[in-house]
Amino acid sequence: MTMTTTTTMTPYEYAAAHQERFVQELIDLLRIPSISTDPAFAPQVRQAADWLAADMRRIGLENVAVLPTGGHPVVYGDWLHAGDDAPTVLIYGHYDVQPAVLADGWLHDPFTPVIREQRLYARGACDDKGQVLAQLKAAEALLATGGSPVNLKYLIEGEEESSSENLPGFVLAQRERLRADVVLISDTRIESLEQPSLNYSLRGLVTLEITVTGPTRDLHSGFGGILHNPAQAVAEIVAKLHHPDGRVAVPGFYDAVRSLGAEERAALQAADLPPREWQHMMGDLPEWGEAGYLKIERIGTRPTLEINGLYGGYSGDGFKTVIPARAGAKISCRLVADQDPETIFAGVSAYLRQITPPTVRLDIRPLGHGRPVHTPTDHPAVQAAKRAYGRNWDKAPLFIPGGGSIPVVAEFQEKLNLPVVLMGFSLPDGGAHGPNESFHLEMYRKGVATVIAFMEELRAGMPA
Amino acid sequence: MTMTTTTTMTPYEYAAAHQERFVQELIDLLRIPSISTDPAFAPQVRQAADWLAADMRRIGLENVAVLPTGGHPVVYGDWLHAGDDAPTVLIYGHYDVQPAVLADGWLHDPFTPVIREQRLYARGACDDKGQVLAQLKAAEALLATGGSPVNLKYLIEGEEESSSENLPGFVLAQRERLRADVVLISDTRIESLEQPSLNYSLRGLVTLEITVTGPTRDLHSGFGGILHNPAQAVAEIVAKLHHPDGRVAVPGFYDAVRSLGAEERAALQAADLPPREWQHMMGDLPEWGEAGYLKIERIGTRPTLEINGLYGGYSGDGFKTVIPARAGAKISCRLVADQDPETIFAGVSAYLRQITPPTVRLDIRPLGHGRPVHTPTDHPAVQAAKRAYGRNWDKAPLFIPGGGSIPVVAEFQEKLNLPVVLMGFSLPDGGAHGPNESFHLEMYRKGVATVIAFMEELRAGMPA
Repeated sequence: MTMTTTTTMTPYEYAAAHQERFVQELIDLLRIPSISTDPAFAPQVRQAADWLAADMRRIGLENVAVLPTGGHPVVYGDWLHAGDDAPTVLIYGHYDVQPAVLADGWLHDPFTPVIREQRLYARGACDDKGQVLAQLKAAEALLATGGSPVNLKYLIEGEEESSSENLPGFVLAQRERLRADVVLISDTRIESLEQPSLNYSLRGLVTLEITVTGPTRDLHSGFGGILHNPAQAVAEIVAKLHHPDGRVAVPGFYDAVRSLGAEERAALQAADLPPREWQHMMGDLPEWGEAGYLKIERIGTRPTLEINGLYGGYSGDGFKTVIPARAGAKISCRLVADQDPETIFAGVSAYLRQITPPTVRLDIRPLGHGRPVHTPTDHPAVQAAKRAYGRNWDKAPLFIPGGGSIPVVAEFQEKLNLPVVLMGFSLPDGGAHGPNESFHLEMYRKGVATVIAFMEELRAGMPA
Repeated sequence: MTMTTTTTMTPYEYAAAHQERFVQELIDLLRIPSISTDPAFAPQVRQAADWLAADMRRIGLENVAVLPTGGHPVVYGDWLHAGDDAPTVLIYGHYDVQPAVLADGWLHDPFTPVIREQRLYARGACDDKGQVLAQLKAAEALLATGGSPVNLKYLIEGEEESSSENLPGFVLAQRERLRADVVLISDTRIESLEQPSLNYSLRGLVTLEITVTGPTRDLHSGFGGILHNPAQAVAEIVAKLHHPDGRVAVPGFYDAVRSLGAEERAALQAADLPPREWQHMMGDLPEWGEAGYLKIERIGTRPTLEINGLYGGYSGDGFKTVIPARAGAKISCRLVADQDPETIFAGVSAYLRQITPPTVRLDIRPLGHGRPVHTPTDHPAVQAAKRAYGRNWDKAPLFIPGGGSIPVVAEFQEKLNLPVVLMGFSLPDGGAHGPNESFHLEMYRKGVATVIAFMEELRAGMPA
């Protein structure tokens, strides 16, 4: 399909006129199970990269390439004709997705997209394929109606869900190619359809796996009573990672955590998780966690330690009276400014070794990490984003600290010395990483329009 | 194949002459994956029942039938021509096996039997197909060489590995057909190739599964910090099931446990688990469990609570930053005389509810249970077994309390009022319930001969 440049339309009119096709293209991309954490899906990850590169070429981006890394490739494309006086925006996103199988509780196959009540359901719908396409379709609308007011560079990676292992090296090696004035990312949440919001921080992430080993092989549980069952031992270790009051028990865990000012805390009152969303997530269960903090503070401004996987012995139908030879847990810590991932990994590891009894063996394996990120809300690029939201909503956006993590964002701040703008379009009940993930089609539409507005506001408000 | 009655041979000579075929027949039976705990294998369970019935008919047993139960069928066959003055032996065994897959650590497919260094490796090799065939091949040798000195009734069930759910009802309904003077079971261990042993007790068993539920669906772990992660909560619950000194923390758990006399404790010194076997099972890890008891006491005379399965969240390759909606554990208790399974299940359930925090939901599901068993060692049938071992080894058998469980044995004691003789031929490193389960071919051979000798000694030493 060849694009016809239609200079008589505004980019907003163009986007509105092509919205149906934009949805169909997103459906095509969502059909590709580009699960980066599972080596079995490597061909599909590559297929998604090729799909994006083809789309970039089609909409008029230049220097499009699927660039190799030590792992899954990066898709790059640019458009650099806005002039020397125009700022350059580096747009980051990812085309890989979390694992998903029907048995996790999906109402349909996670890679067969379904539209229901204005939502498009599929793995990757909001995290991050829908948001990546919102960025690319904004570019398409601009380039098809006379060009972009700013220079554009797209870096769409394939390892975000597996801790962006190879991206830091890639960013360092390609720092000339990636030179820009601001990084723009759509991989976060928005408060609601009615209330826009911007994240000004993201939590860092440390992931690891522990394996607890006992017998040299699985034993008949008739031997129970003389040896430390690894499934019991891993539970005992995991149970010691938190104090009964919800605080993480690792010594020094909170040492580097930046305290909030009274003003910042007060501002968060308005942005706290609404009871309706709690009810949707948790039914009538009471909340849990560090006492003395709002939910939004605990999500966005406090570090956590979570058990993401627990395994040992037999978990199939029926029963197997076995003492497993090994059991394990997948553990992650979400970090906030100014925690250092390597310091936290070392502290967690030391504590794990300390609490492991001599009756079992412990193995600790790091599985990647990323730094926390914090961007001042008064930066001209953030202010341009604020105005862009204002042009598409009748409310000003809230500034919210983000609970999630995008491992590479800190790399952009540190290695490229760039401010990061986090314009997220994923609704709170979008189900990222869970079953029945969805992207609201109204947010897709508004996302494209808001990105176009951001480019215009950035040209107006920020020097190159 | 038709058996020719060879009255010029003794049954021992017959068994020796046909040993190779006996091994081949066991291999045939082991090829059938008769996994009773997994409904997907129901046809294979039936296939194993039919195989046994055919073999029973072939060796000359009568009234052979595959009898329905509410679950997997019972295979029955008898030979009742020893005379009114001869005792009747009810031989119990099971043709079902525990689940097994290559990934558990098997060196080859668990249902493709392999012989290596005089051991036959396959799921079910020692537990219990090898021992069942030792019983049937003893009958074949007797019937092919003039007949059995005692009346024989075989009851081979298909649900032992799934708690013999339907057998108690079957035994009650068929108690006329099953009328006998003694129950003989080969489903336990023997001390070593050189040192025979007999179990005089078996532990009872209570099995259950707990499920801990939190969020209404799996959540992105960016929400970490405000809700009680079910994987963490299940670990915290499991960690509270034992005191730090290894005792089970359930209130009243030890109330009904019978204390051993000084003489019985002293006798167990000689039968304690040898360091070589500990080293084989555990490498150089230190032991664990209730202080103040020998290992053999903790295995055979003390009750335990074991975690047989632990699950929650993502346990595949790589990492998934998810907070699972639910997590769970499979738990079993091994009971000793005079603990009552229903009392223990009620006590464990009450304690589980008590220690579950209000921030998650708990579900408890019973998965079957059986009573502990204790047989006096001076019973004439046990003494006949002792002499039978003495005729095949140059050492007298040790009397050892058994750590395992055969859920239905208590039913024979209670409903049929029968003494139970436990002649086990499984070596300590036979790997029952674990990977690379094996049956030593020398034990198969000696097992057949010892069972023949038992029938002869029983006729000589026990009134009908």
